[in-house]
Amino acid sequence: MVRLETSNGAARRRRLGAWGFEGEEYLPSPQMLAWLQERIGLSSPYPTLDRTRLAAPTPRLLPELPGEHSCDPLDRLTHARGQGLTDLLRLRSGTVPALPDTVARPQNDADVESILRSCARAGVRVVPWGGGTSVTGGVNIIPTAAPAVSLDLAALSGLQSFDETSHLAVFGAGTSGPAIEAALGARGCTLGHFPQSWELSTLGGWVVTRASGQESLGYGDIHNIVAGLELVAPNGRLVLPAFPSSAAGPDLRELVLGSEGRLGVVTRVTVRIRPRPPQVRAAATLLPSWQDGLDGVRALVQQAVPLTLIRLSDEPETETAMAIGLSRHPWAAGLVRGGLRLRGIRGSGCLMLCAAAGHERQVRETWERAATILHAHGGVGLGSAPGRRWLAERFRHPYLRDALLDRGIATDTLETAAPWSRVAQLTDDVRRALSGALAAENEATAVLCHVSHPYRDGTSLYFTFFFRCPTDVEHAVARWATLKRAATAAIVAGGGTLSHHHGVGSWHAPWFKDEVGEAGVRVLKAAAHALDPAGILNPHVLLDPIDRLEV
Amino acid sequence: MVRLETSNGAARRRRLGAWGFEGEEYLPSPQMLAWLQERIGLSSPYPTLDRTRLAAPTPRLLPELPGEHSCDPLDRLTHARGQGLTDLLRLRSGTVPALPDTVARPQNDADVESILRSCARAGVRVVPWGGGTSVTGGVNIIPTAAPAVSLDLAALSGLQSFDETSHLAVFGAGTSGPAIEAALGARGCTLGHFPQSWELSTLGGWVVTRASGQESLGYGDIHNIVAGLELVAPNGRLVLPAFPSSAAGPDLRELVLGSEGRLGVVTRVTVRIRPRPPQVRAAATLLPSWQDGLDGVRALVQQAVPLTLIRLSDEPETETAMAIGLSRHPWAAGLVRGGLRLRGIRGSGCLMLCAAAGHERQVRETWERAATILHAHGGVGLGSAPGRRWLAERFRHPYLRDALLDRGIATDTLETAAPWSRVAQLTDDVRRALSGALAAENEATAVLCHVSHPYRDGTSLYFTFFFRCPTDVEHAVARWATLKRAATAAIVAGGGTLSHHHGVGSWHAPWFKDEVGEAGVRVLKAAAHALDPAGILNPHVLLDPIDRLEV
Repeated sequence: MVRLETSNGAARRRRLGAWGFEGEEYLPSPQMLAWLQERIGLSSPYPTLDRTRLAAPTPRLLPELPGEHSCDPLDRLTHARGQGLTDLLRLRSGTVPALPDTVARPQNDADVESILRSCARAGVRVVPWGGGTSVTGGVNIIPTAAPAVSLDLAALSGLQSFDETSHLAVFGAGTSGPAIEAALGARGCTLGHFPQSWELSTLGGWVVTRASGQESLGYGDIHNIVAGLELVAPNGRLVLPAFPSSAAGPDLRELVLGSEGRLGVVTRVTVRIRPRPPQVRAAATLLPSWQDGLDGVRALVQQAVPLTLIRLSDEPETETAMAIGLSRHPWAAGLVRGGLRLRGIRGSGCLMLCAAAGHERQVRETWERAATILHAHGGVGLGSAPGRRWLAERFRHPYLRDALLDRGIATDTLETAAPWSRVAQLTDDVRRALSGALAAENEATAVLCHVSHPYRDGTSLYFTFFFRCPTDVEHAVARWATLKRAATAAIVAGGGTLSHHHGVGSWHAPWFKDEVGEAGVRVLKAAAHALDPAGILNPHVLLDPIDRLEV
Repeated sequence: MVRLETSNGAARRRRLGAWGFEGEEYLPSPQMLAWLQERIGLSSPYPTLDRTRLAAPTPRLLPELPGEHSCDPLDRLTHARGQGLTDLLRLRSGTVPALPDTVARPQNDADVESILRSCARAGVRVVPWGGGTSVTGGVNIIPTAAPAVSLDLAALSGLQSFDETSHLAVFGAGTSGPAIEAALGARGCTLGHFPQSWELSTLGGWVVTRASGQESLGYGDIHNIVAGLELVAPNGRLVLPAFPSSAAGPDLRELVLGSEGRLGVVTRVTVRIRPRPPQVRAAATLLPSWQDGLDGVRALVQQAVPLTLIRLSDEPETETAMAIGLSRHPWAAGLVRGGLRLRGIRGSGCLMLCAAAGHERQVRETWERAATILHAHGGVGLGSAPGRRWLAERFRHPYLRDALLDRGIATDTLETAAPWSRVAQLTDDVRRALSGALAAENEATAVLCHVSHPYRDGTSLYFTFFFRCPTDVEHAVARWATLKRAATAAIVAGGGTLSHHHGVGSWHAPWFKDEVGEAGVRVLKAAAHALDPAGILNPHVLLDPIDRLEV
């Protein structure tokens, strides 16, 4: 059973087949449901989880493994899938095609090493498991003949060393977001890495999927945060010390970052930390259009305004933000309408949230620079309430998906990044691909888009899409796969990367060769073979171009 | 013959066996010579280059190669070695142990591909050549049985595309520093990458050695600047598009960065560019001690003061800076002495140069923040003259080495980087290793050190050392090798990286396994084998742990 210690020591139980912890939920507002119904039509409830339908086949015979391990059916079910939409659909409907034969819980590096060697000898697959929050099929047990171990790294947890002078800390790879911030907070510091999965996901998972936190603009993507790491593989161990920078050959850390378990198991990571900023201030602005907003974001980053977060929603997302959030403040809707009229904005405009962190004066100066730039792009200030609300609720948003699915509305997200010169066209292409993908079924898709990780040379684009979820699981999965294929093809054709921060997993793997080429795949396979000659490590992700979207 | 087009179109001829261009020099001041003599004793002139002693053996038979190629003895000699100290010693003395059998000049990617395939079939080594400025033996022709081609990439030069919106530009890998800045300057932009070798070195060379420019604090190391690249290998081609960030697998750009020719030949690079700052301001400060200076640098970077450059010299380097630079301004020496007395500083203190760039207000605010922090660390402001002078002369400093060698004083540099918590001890360790390395010969070494590339979590350390150069070349090379081995061993033992920005080459290769481990070497060899199965590419660098310091 997966539990998480809260800061007051009480264990919280993870929900099965849904996001997060038992007892938590985030319900759609009536306005949001009306907005969705208008776009995709009336929906029928999707079945909720029925534990009596969950079956666990008899585990296959495995070699003896050190450390704790469990063949408990519920434990195996919990470790069978990540948090992608089809993972939830299959768990709810009791159609999970394969479970790990055991869940192993190594207690230290030596256990990991011993487990990997035993499994390599016996031809047993090993799927490393951090927080189990992959949305790309990255931890899923694919039905094949070889037995499979889910390697739960929760015990490799906690702060191992702290170098106050160098702003460096070493954590076990299984340490979760809240545990990291608790340990650093007690020392006046922060990692500043807050992906939406933060409450559940782990440092090791962030590393192997190249994660980005929502404040990456200020604190960097995980590849900027990682200074050193250790990786245990069936055929050796990589110990990469923490250097601020090095010209001693290619950066092997960057080979582990994004390796999704194919090269080995990350056991500990040295991270760059920061003093906790005395002040964080978020503010909202409404921009007349998506293009004005993109231009505004680009100006902010290219002029190096030291913000820690910029999020820009397109018009539909702004409408839903109004529906789920702003409209709860009656004054806000009126303010927005007034501001829009003053600026001659037709439609909803595009909502932008910005945050700055630091000393009071720094924050004020940063915000003044930002406001000047945004005003020049037609921005209307909405004050700090929407930003405060978003910051307070940001880790609860994923619960919304389950509540929507209860109501028969399936939601998934996908994301990419591209140079600025391609962004507007790419947004249109992906939006069009998603909107039209279910036309043959005469079904509509609602699509939202936002910018959340901007850079001087380009930005991420994050799409959320909604469709009516058939109650038949295979039909629902097929509908999702149709949408996913259409969007991914549009991303690849439009010059975007396959993923900005979700990773490749098994669901993007069919397109990976399109991005890095045949030689790129060959180089990565050679590296994987050098560390894992038997090919037992997470063999269904990243490098195997077999289309497994429906599994 | 290697020429370089100047901005007015006139070709400048490279000096053979010395830095830079004919007609240029940078002479040591009498004060500097006195300072050195006091520390290492009187020296006898080392022989100057004698062209009559330069011999070129008959080139070995090679397969037919496309593009231009040359067996001209002088051309081959020019491409036999880089710019390391022993390269100069051997050229001056006419004891270059091996020359390339030909110098090939591919005109395009197809030529590169065809040359690599021909050479792979025929077992001919290929050593890629950019500006030929390696100081780690990275382009040297090692005497072995296999014939060798020096692949001069000068023709793969120039701006190929420019994306103003995304702040991206594509250049041929053979483009030199001045050519890049000329092309970008015409468009109001800059790359901001100014290594000391800038006048001669090339973009491709910077990429494969993981170079850092002197203003890396503001513009990033080359791995921050490179957004995409193309690499041609005997067994394939890597085309890595420019993304602002990506989670689609490991970052293959980072595998090419630092690959030193082992994986293939970089033919074009997409770089992140910046608008040219309207103002650049450099200012000098004197800190009471090395430790105060280190603390001051650390405070500046950890408090994110947006400087573009910080250089901190230790006491001996400050003394030589006074000797070669500041003392030419009589007022400066008086000011310094006065400031020191006021602050109760004994000795020379430590000179720090800082630069800020941007709009007038930004520069002023940045400098105010910096000055406040440095004052708190005991800093005494020296005004802007020393910084202006340093900026104006920085690319001429390498000429000093040849002028010193004329006087029998050998100079070389080496560098590392480490977390802040190790920096003070590492400085002492390396300084002590160099100072005592020639004790058996009863010879003294003068050692200078500076910080030039600071980061939040640590800094580079750059050492310059001087010793009396025996007129016998083998004795001189042996003396250098003794110093180099002592310093490198101290760096490795003290927890520094083998190189912050010079690379591994053939001279650091014996220690490379100590840094990345046996598994790290194995992974890189596997990657190299995937792209270059015949192992023809620069086979003497990075991965072959054979001690070749004396060759």
